[in-house]
Amino acid sequence: MSDPRLDDILRRLTALEDRAAIAQLIAGYGPSVDSGSAEETAALWTADGTYSFSIRPGDDRTETLEGADGIRAMVEGEGHQGIIRGGAAHFLGPPHIVVEGDRATAVTYSLLIVRDDEGDRFVVARAGANDWQLVRTAAGWRVERRRQRLLDGTEAARAILREAAGRPGV
Amino acid sequence: MSDPRLDDILRRLTALEDRAAIAQLIAGYGPSVDSGSAEETAALWTADGTYSFSIRPGDDRTETLEGADGIRAMVEGEGHQGIIRGGAAHFLGPPHIVVEGDRATAVTYSLLIVRDDEGDRFVVARAGANDWQLVRTAAGWRVERRRQRLLDGTEAARAILREAAGRPGV
Amino acid sequence: MSDPRLDDILRRLTALEDRAAIAQLIAGYGPSVDSGSAEETAALWTADGTYSFSIRPGDDRTETLEGADGIRAMVEGEGHQGIIRGGAAHFLGPPHIVVEGDRATAVTYSLLIVRDDEGDRFVVARAGANDWQLVRTAAGWRVERRRQRLLDGTEAARAILREAAGRPGV
Repeated sequence: MSDPRLDDILRRLTALEDRAAIAQLIAGYGPSVDSGSAEETAALWTADGTYSFSIRPGDDRTETLEGADGIRAMVEGEGHQGIIRGGAAHFLGPPHIVVEGDRATAVTYSLLIVRDDEGDRFVVARAGANDWQLVRTAAGWRVERRRQRLLDGTEAARAILREAAGRPGV
Repeated sequence: MSDPRLDDILRRLTALEDRAAIAQLIAGYGPSVDSGSAEETAALWTADGTYSFSIRPGDDRTETLEGADGIRAMVEGEGHQGIIRGGAAHFLGPPHIVVEGDRATAVTYSLLIVRDDEGDRFVVARAGANDWQLVRTAAGWRVERRRQRLLDGTEAARAILREAAGRPGV
Repeated sequence: MSDPRLDDILRRLTALEDRAAIAQLIAGYGPSVDSGSAEETAALWTADGTYSFSIRPGDDRTETLEGADGIRAMVEGEGHQGIIRGGAAHFLGPPHIVVEGDRATAVTYSLLIVRDDEGDRFVVARAGANDWQLVRTAAGWRVERRRQRLLDGTEAARAILREAAGRPGV
């Protein structure tokens, strides 16, 4: 006969595994995109997942990549290839994660660090706030929607960060 | 009758949950402060928790915020509001955590990244070492005392980092 | 008689503990090296572990530190001591970790952030991709080989990042 504490243990263990899997998924974004691995980058998302991001600081326009084809096309595109040929790190901070059943929200900062034109140093080209909406699939956690907004002083990025504020989640 | 291994499992599970909760608490600092969420920032600390930090590089003076009122006042103050209106990320690195019963120490790096005056790039305005003294409360882990010292070559920041050096802790 | 689910629980718990221990080990690198703690830095590696790194951006030569003596000598050397006297953060990002039995691979970004010559700001002197090969020892996880290659647009760093791409690992 089973010890009644086992159900509680399994629930708590699964909660920790979910957090580890989500942190790992997000930690794979930079390596995938900075190595130019288009297929592996797309595989972090669901097949019809989206990624929208600010175009530049002080400009409230955004661009949205749609589905695996959109994400692959970004990685293979001339803009991104030029960035990685010059030397670049898509550097993400530790995620703030809230899991609710088969869905989760993660909030991270992101930095785009590129080699300086003069070549001997690096510069912080972009700093953004990111909201990752994740879903549990048969193959594990995947990104359904990522939104990145630049920390240029406008409200959009602060609205993303506010999602994590005040939600301990653990 | 209970399996004797269950007590060991529960102890190990709780140890991992403590680490996850502390990492999550610290991951909430940046989002709270950069979204201007004064109440949520203060709630990361105990009611009488403190936060002391270096004023500027090469200057050994520090300022100390006292209790929830002090922390709220900092977030709502003109200095901080100006920083986030300009565009800012209080970017923390992954914590090194040592838990001892109901108390814990975490050591992290912190970067203050702000939009450049010219507006198209970002700069690293500050880089610091942080010592977080945490305590387990009825509502979960909270910060009792945070000290941040700038990595300006003086001894204070190195003393904080030395706390984590040589303490595997897991 | 033991519940058959206990074996599964213990295996999953150990997997999470391995990840936590590896993350903690790597989180100890910056504090050890930036506080000038030579012995503690060396102790992150096995006794004959190695650390190879790019010398400068755009230069494909690397330097390799061999064993505890080599790592201690680097920390105590004039080059490194000068860097920390000037003010420096060896800032690592969250690791992407894949454990396979008693061996593990972690991939991280690394930034070397130093105080600017003018003293009021900080600059990103280096940005690199890191491959950590880890081994489980009687004393816990240790680094057997770390390779760091600068993100200067050359292939070496992208090859390291490609290891993590497409390996969920959890």
